[in-house]
Amino acid sequence: MVGLGPGDECLMSPHAREAIHLADVVVGYTGYIKLIAPDLLEGKDVLSTGMMAEVERCRRAVDEAVAGRNVAMVCSGDPGIYAMAGLVMELLETHDFFSDICFEVIPGIPAFAAAAALLGAPLMHDFASVSLSDLLTPWDKIEKRIRCAADADFVIAIYNPRSKKRAGHLIDAINIIKLFRRGSTPVGIVNRAYREGQKVQLVTLDTVNEQDVDMQTVLIIGNSSTREVAGKMLTPRGYAGKYDI
Amino acid sequence: MVGLGPGDECLMSPHAREAIHLADVVVGYTGYIKLIAPDLLEGKDVLSTGMMAEVERCRRAVDEAVAGRNVAMVCSGDPGIYAMAGLVMELLETHDFFSDICFEVIPGIPAFAAAAALLGAPLMHDFASVSLSDLLTPWDKIEKRIRCAADADFVIAIYNPRSKKRAGHLIDAINIIKLFRRGSTPVGIVNRAYREGQKVQLVTLDTVNEQDVDMQTVLIIGNSSTREVAGKMLTPRGYAGKYDI
Repeated sequence: MVGLGPGDECLMSPHAREAIHLADVVVGYTGYIKLIAPDLLEGKDVLSTGMMAEVERCRRAVDEAVAGRNVAMVCSGDPGIYAMAGLVMELLETHDFFSDICFEVIPGIPAFAAAAALLGAPLMHDFASVSLSDLLTPWDKIEKRIRCAADADFVIAIYNPRSKKRAGHLIDAINIIKLFRRGSTPVGIVNRAYREGQKVQLVTLDTVNEQDVDMQTVLIIGNSSTREVAGKMLTPRGYAGKYDI
Repeated sequence: MVGLGPGDECLMSPHAREAIHLADVVVGYTGYIKLIAPDLLEGKDVLSTGMMAEVERCRRAVDEAVAGRNVAMVCSGDPGIYAMAGLVMELLETHDFFSDICFEVIPGIPAFAAAAALLGAPLMHDFASVSLSDLLTPWDKIEKRIRCAADADFVIAIYNPRSKKRAGHLIDAINIIKLFRRGSTPVGIVNRAYREGQKVQLVTLDTVNEQDVDMQTVLIIGNSSTREVAGKMLTPRGYAGKYDI
């Protein structure tokens, strides 16, 4: 399981690059395969599939590995954060393949850390990450997580804020957070971090516009002390109260 | 602000490497400077300081930048997660230096993502990250965050689980989480991920031993569906309930 990082090759680790270089087969969502330099894929079997074929994609990767081939299954960001490392482990478990192959996860820079870097320093204090996708998780569980994260003053990263099937979920989430935080709380909206078409916006809970987000957007919602500084987002850790800075 | 990643050079991004290469001055905690290959530091001013001189270290970095030098301030993991990006922004704000310099954060693979990769796939669902350090945060706020994260069934990453001054905080945190989760919930304990002396342990809420952790340890506490599979930690995302895998 290979984490490609946010997208730009300059943020892909040498370890990830080496794993792809050594692989016989590279498996991944079509959009992620495109993030890899073509020369690195030369001479390899490349199995790419569209967005909705996640189970099929992982099954193919497992089948190839069990057949004795060296497989790099690539994910953008980190393979262990809302990606495919878990599903591959479930397949290995279900079919009792763990003793037949060597399974390794190569971490990558997660999408929310990339978004945070482009925004400034919004994650400097405790944070929670919530996906708004209710394909595999009941919405009331998602709502409870948002409510608890807001109540405990976590900085909140939001993944999968919108899809064609699920209009309104982001606004529902924002409204829950506004029960606990002022409307002027900074919100960072990052589309396509470190990829072509990158867009970074700093708005507030009061001015979030659902039209600005799609399924590739990550939002970062400040905690009660997050503020805008020089057009960037800052969540102070507390040094200024304790030390003379 | 340069994120070095967990430690091993093979997980440091080319962008981070390039930023250090281009710098006149490299500033960082002594332990982080040691993670950088000596040849990359050749001919540069290296300003390293011990653990407790965070404000002084950031002030020196800012002073050098304002004097017109190209500064790489290095952090292990990601500079925006429990690291120095925020304090540097506070200094730039306090002294009104934002218009004088160009401030950039280069993200890195965070410590908890590195720990998760070594454990298997524990972060596959929504997660929260909490630091147990009460140097800058009141303990009752930390307790509330742990309680809310446990109640909402977040996977929980714990940073700074122990220090000489603060015995007992980890056990206090575990006891709060046990109010919401069974004692057999898997807990991953990772020391020095991807560094010399790396140690990865899989225990449970009932068997966490405070002697196994220090300030460099990251713990990952499973949610209600996390389980041990082939000696690894897996938080299933929910595919098995919805699809035939």
